[in-house]
Amino acid sequence: MNYFVIVDVTLRQGIADPEGATIERALPALGFSGVSNVKAGKSFRMSIDAASEEEALEKATALAERLLSNPVIEDAAARLGETVTP
Amino acid sequence: MNYFVIVDVTLRQGIADPEGATIERALPALGFSGVSNVKAGKSFRMSIDAASEEEALEKATALAERLLSNPVIEDAAARLGETVTP
Repeated sequence: MNYFVIVDVTLRQGIADPEGATIERALPALGFSGVSNVKAGKSFRMSIDAASEEEALEKATALAERLLSNPVIEDAAARLGETVTP
Repeated sequence: MNYFVIVDVTLRQGIADPEGATIERALPALGFSGVSNVKAGKSFRMSIDAASEEEALEKATALAERLLSNPVIEDAAARLGETVTP
């Protein structure tokens, strides 16, 4: 079966996030107040052919750790998404 | 109240995604088969101070369209996340 999987890659706690900090600094000038702790990250969407949901997530996690993230500074998490385009 | 909001920015359908295509091409050489339709995107996590969930999401959507995405080629969607760090 084909599963739609989303991998979220976020910076680990304590790692500097200049992109998020820059966005946060720009917000008041654009009229947005009350927004804090902005963190930038990446996401990857893909179709994975697997026998079960567990197998699809396992494959996505392995792939995320080897190819999509830098485990020294980033965390990767795989989750099943609703299929938008089968 | 403080809400934890996640904004997902993805390329619109039909827009070329060279990053996703490159990842997809690299997968067989790394031993991953059965993965297709890889799409790269961005995500932003933030805390928003608002009176209600609706207000927080509205603020995040406005902010995503003005600052976090390029509406010509990208779609932005805001959702509430589980609070990891309050």
